[in-house]
Amino acid sequence: MNQNRNVYLKMKTLTEARQILDEAFAVSDILGSETVAVPEAVGRVLAKPIHAKLSSPHFNAAAMDGLAVKAEITFGANESTPKTLKVGQDAFYVNTGHVMPVDTDAVIMIEQVHVLDEDQIQIDKPVFPWQNVRKVGEDIVATELLFPRNHLVTPICVGALLTGGVFSVPVKTKPKVLIIPTGSELFDWRANSLDDFKPGQVLETNSFVLGGLIEACGGSHTRHDMLMDDSEKIKQVVQKAVKKEFQIILILGGSSAGSEDYAKRVILEIGEVFVHGVTIMPGKPVIIGAVENTPVFGIPGYPVSAIIAFEQFVRPLIHNMLGQPVQTRKTVKVAPTRKIASKLGVEEFLRVKLGQVGEHIVATPLPRGAGSITSITEADGIIRIPNHVEGLKDHELATAELLRPLPSVRRTIVVVGSHDNTLDILADQIKAKHSHLTLSSSHVGSMGGLMAIKRGVCHLAGSHLLDPEDGSYNLSYIKKFLAQLDVKLVNLVFRDQGLMVKRGNPKGIKGIEDLAREDISFINRQAGSGTRILLDYRLNQIGINPAQINGYQHEEFTHMAVAVAVLSGTADTGLGIYAAAAALNLDFIPVVTEQYDLIIPSTHFESVNIQLLLETINTGEFRDRVEALGGYNTQKTGEIII
Amino acid sequence: MNQNRNVYLKMKTLTEARQILDEAFAVSDILGSETVAVPEAVGRVLAKPIHAKLSSPHFNAAAMDGLAVKAEITFGANESTPKTLKVGQDAFYVNTGHVMPVDTDAVIMIEQVHVLDEDQIQIDKPVFPWQNVRKVGEDIVATELLFPRNHLVTPICVGALLTGGVFSVPVKTKPKVLIIPTGSELFDWRANSLDDFKPGQVLETNSFVLGGLIEACGGSHTRHDMLMDDSEKIKQVVQKAVKKEFQIILILGGSSAGSEDYAKRVILEIGEVFVHGVTIMPGKPVIIGAVENTPVFGIPGYPVSAIIAFEQFVRPLIHNMLGQPVQTRKTVKVAPTRKIASKLGVEEFLRVKLGQVGEHIVATPLPRGAGSITSITEADGIIRIPNHVEGLKDHELATAELLRPLPSVRRTIVVVGSHDNTLDILADQIKAKHSHLTLSSSHVGSMGGLMAIKRGVCHLAGSHLLDPEDGSYNLSYIKKFLAQLDVKLVNLVFRDQGLMVKRGNPKGIKGIEDLAREDISFINRQAGSGTRILLDYRLNQIGINPAQINGYQHEEFTHMAVAVAVLSGTADTGLGIYAAAAALNLDFIPVVTEQYDLIIPSTHFESVNIQLLLETINTGEFRDRVEALGGYNTQKTGEIII
Repeated sequence: MNQNRNVYLKMKTLTEARQILDEAFAVSDILGSETVAVPEAVGRVLAKPIHAKLSSPHFNAAAMDGLAVKAEITFGANESTPKTLKVGQDAFYVNTGHVMPVDTDAVIMIEQVHVLDEDQIQIDKPVFPWQNVRKVGEDIVATELLFPRNHLVTPICVGALLTGGVFSVPVKTKPKVLIIPTGSELFDWRANSLDDFKPGQVLETNSFVLGGLIEACGGSHTRHDMLMDDSEKIKQVVQKAVKKEFQIILILGGSSAGSEDYAKRVILEIGEVFVHGVTIMPGKPVIIGAVENTPVFGIPGYPVSAIIAFEQFVRPLIHNMLGQPVQTRKTVKVAPTRKIASKLGVEEFLRVKLGQVGEHIVATPLPRGAGSITSITEADGIIRIPNHVEGLKDHELATAELLRPLPSVRRTIVVVGSHDNTLDILADQIKAKHSHLTLSSSHVGSMGGLMAIKRGVCHLAGSHLLDPEDGSYNLSYIKKFLAQLDVKLVNLVFRDQGLMVKRGNPKGIKGIEDLAREDISFINRQAGSGTRILLDYRLNQIGINPAQINGYQHEEFTHMAVAVAVLSGTADTGLGIYAAAAALNLDFIPVVTEQYDLIIPSTHFESVNIQLLLETINTGEFRDRVEALGGYNTQKTGEIII
Repeated sequence: MNQNRNVYLKMKTLTEARQILDEAFAVSDILGSETVAVPEAVGRVLAKPIHAKLSSPHFNAAAMDGLAVKAEITFGANESTPKTLKVGQDAFYVNTGHVMPVDTDAVIMIEQVHVLDEDQIQIDKPVFPWQNVRKVGEDIVATELLFPRNHLVTPICVGALLTGGVFSVPVKTKPKVLIIPTGSELFDWRANSLDDFKPGQVLETNSFVLGGLIEACGGSHTRHDMLMDDSEKIKQVVQKAVKKEFQIILILGGSSAGSEDYAKRVILEIGEVFVHGVTIMPGKPVIIGAVENTPVFGIPGYPVSAIIAFEQFVRPLIHNMLGQPVQTRKTVKVAPTRKIASKLGVEEFLRVKLGQVGEHIVATPLPRGAGSITSITEADGIIRIPNHVEGLKDHELATAELLRPLPSVRRTIVVVGSHDNTLDILADQIKAKHSHLTLSSSHVGSMGGLMAIKRGVCHLAGSHLLDPEDGSYNLSYIKKFLAQLDVKLVNLVFRDQGLMVKRGNPKGIKGIEDLAREDISFINRQAGSGTRILLDYRLNQIGINPAQINGYQHEEFTHMAVAVAVLSGTADTGLGIYAAAAALNLDFIPVVTEQYDLIIPSTHFESVNIQLLLETINTGEFRDRVEALGGYNTQKTGEIII
């Protein structure tokens, strides 16, 4: 098995790979052209320069409502010696857009005319020649260039084209891309029931994502049926495709250097490989090759790798074919919320959440794995950490490429701290009523939230920190850790914490005291989370040494992750909230009802965004949805504690 | 006729009108929802919050190629005491994505394994639990919120939805807009031949422009057949439409306060009018009303007015319906190339061309008339001059909203000066070969170009300034007016100047000396243009007093404008280049062959953009196209004179 492994011969940097791509394919003239009606040309690229066929206006036209005259007969009119003009002889009523009568060259505005009777008017001001007249060709002269070739047609261009008498235009044909999803592990969700979806299988999603990205940048795509890891079959499909109408071929999957990774062999056998492996992360295992001069890409299977490989190589190629400038994203200076180490020699595309907190736009790093599609759908920006840099420092500004418009980033409420399912409901209720606002949560536990408040990198923090001395929540921690700060504390909910166990409670767990049993494996929450503090407090009360508990070292960061570990059998039980257990249909052994509050620095409390958030919390709709989850009590929801 | 005129009751400011619009229509919940397959949901807005149905990964998966083991059996391995593991018993070959075998919780990377034989491997480093494993739910946990309602689906969102086991989603129906083009002057270019297009008629173009703009912001549109100025018929159509599925109705035309302006009457008779007249320019005559709670707009007929009225009122309404934030354009500080006076009490939307020259982005104002569609298709930005400001100063920076991305503005070559038809060919050749570059010309005459060079607001100027003393071109003017500057002079073309006359030369004009004839009307070029200097030089030589020439005061700014004046009969003749005469099929009486050069400050000469421009000028393709126009000589084209 090991013998078949192929290895990256020599990885290229992103810059090198882009240059190789540019040099390998001279694509500016390969697309054909087709003629389309002008209104249908929006979003298309002109294949030829377009010249006007008509002038606009195509006649001398009144530009105002009023009376058309020969300007020279008005010369000398003033308030003391007004001039009287005969309607139908010297002056002619016209409306805006009317043809100028013969031998007239100016329009007196109706507001400046004194109507004596049906046949006579008086004026006390002259007009100059061509005043209030739109002259022939004032806007467009027949034969002049309206748009050069390679111009991208917008809805507004349609106006200039039609006005210039151009009703159809030659546009470049769209680059046609064939997407071939490959891999024996793929599951076709369109042809099969999810009941048949087995461990080891992966939903085939990349072809749909890339298909959408291709259409969005002006290409068109055809999705080939999924293929197994069958080099011969894939080869046949590629060979047929390059002979047909496709300008680009994407082989999805099988592009890395593992033993089942056949994409490179396929391309090598029927064409050439220019690049295999680029020093970017995600996206490293990309392949750039050609079969009979048609570009063929091996696209990595992990979703974020696939997207980044597409954006860095395929999209620029499509833009080049269309004669369009390669797009670059706007950038903005951001303050990372924490230090991030990064490998030397690799350019990392770090996905971050962004929000404006005080002076800075703060950047919270998202999971770095290439397999995490939500790390890019939740991202507001990407920080590129160059090859020669070892990572981000937390006290230095970094540059982020924006995935959302800056105004939208500025209207984001940044929540960092303990995880609770009602935050999802809050995010949705805010989006429903105040669509310009976004609630962005990062789950780092209650203590993490407290520290984020202290460092000024969030607008508010969710927290449920129990003081074992007096049974109070949050207050003593605020006093201890946020002594320098003026903060408000608002109750969000009371909620039930307890042990989650598989449906039917197969191991007969009754409470915290069972966690020391040898036959029981536990899944813990991270140090600093309110739930961990609660657990340690209870263990101490009962006198259980954490070392006795199987799995005490195994930490997760959210209630839902604990629930899923229990559901999947990774552990027998874990401590968490009722809502998480209920969501995954687990049984729940209540341990305590606790208080979950929002800590809000006073500097943000009066801001419009926070006030809208508090307003939302105080609606009946929010409370009803929270209560419907079960395990919550909203009696004090919205109450300002301090 | 005058009696029927209706007047603006009380105009509103833009802010007032927007507020009235927002208050009149509570539209956030009026759209229905429909279910679409996820790949087809791109560009649509979620009607409900979407929760995951599957976890991802849905099984514990190897995250590396290598051997799956129970981590604890590797503890203690190091270089001096490596551990040997039995394949198939302690360790199992896995590839990335494979299901983790029962009772394993970590993967040793293949690169870190020493293969002893088929059955045994050796390791010299331990792995920790869950190392190189993607755990169930690591990316997505079933039931968690993927996207809140009102979320706009992108191609990348498709990946998260499908991965979460969501294959179809409820999306908001698109707001349906009925467009009713009205006006007896309209000409239907789809149903008629242009041969039937008569003076006084106007091509119906606005419905196609607005239709495209509606689709681009997430709505859908239906275009009603054109209607005459028939209030009854328009009323019937509106009444039927509000009962049917339309959420917005646009009556195009008839919205101003003139005598044929029926839109307001129509709306008033069957509904209410909230606003008639907004203090913006263009766009003033807009009407905002309602019929049976459905918003009905009267959209002005001038193309730029229609676009601005749409952007300011209709688009925000569509965005509100869709629960999308109202878009704002990026702005940038720009340096106006000249002073612009603006009316107090009116907010002007001044269209400008932009380009980076030296430190500043310079803004060259375009024609201000609402009828000039090219003033917006050629614009790179819009400077909004507020109600309370009397205009722009030429030495103060102003704020421009960007219509093109800033990088593209920065890659614009700004040409200001004399007009020549070969500049169109140059623009097209540049776009063909260097699609990221744009050539942007403004025609202000040769002296205007010289002054623009002097003030540092352009990259180069086209010029053909004759020195009557020695018959040279441009050199003495450069010496006199640009003494402080180091500039290069490059020949573009030699060209024939002459008198343009109607086909067949009906007045028998033979040369400049005929211009003094009483039966001849002349059309002149503006003072400061090379052509005007040439004319005055010749008149002086012959001894003709300009006062003897009919129309000497009537000035146009380009050769094409002169040609069109002759073609349309506004004047019998004018002085201009052969190419302009030929384009409009006029006869041409040669007067002189003159030199047309490009003046380029040395500071710009070596820039990449200017070098690409010069390279383009020196191609055979450019020269061939120029020669094909006729009246040009390219023997010295591209030659550096100084």
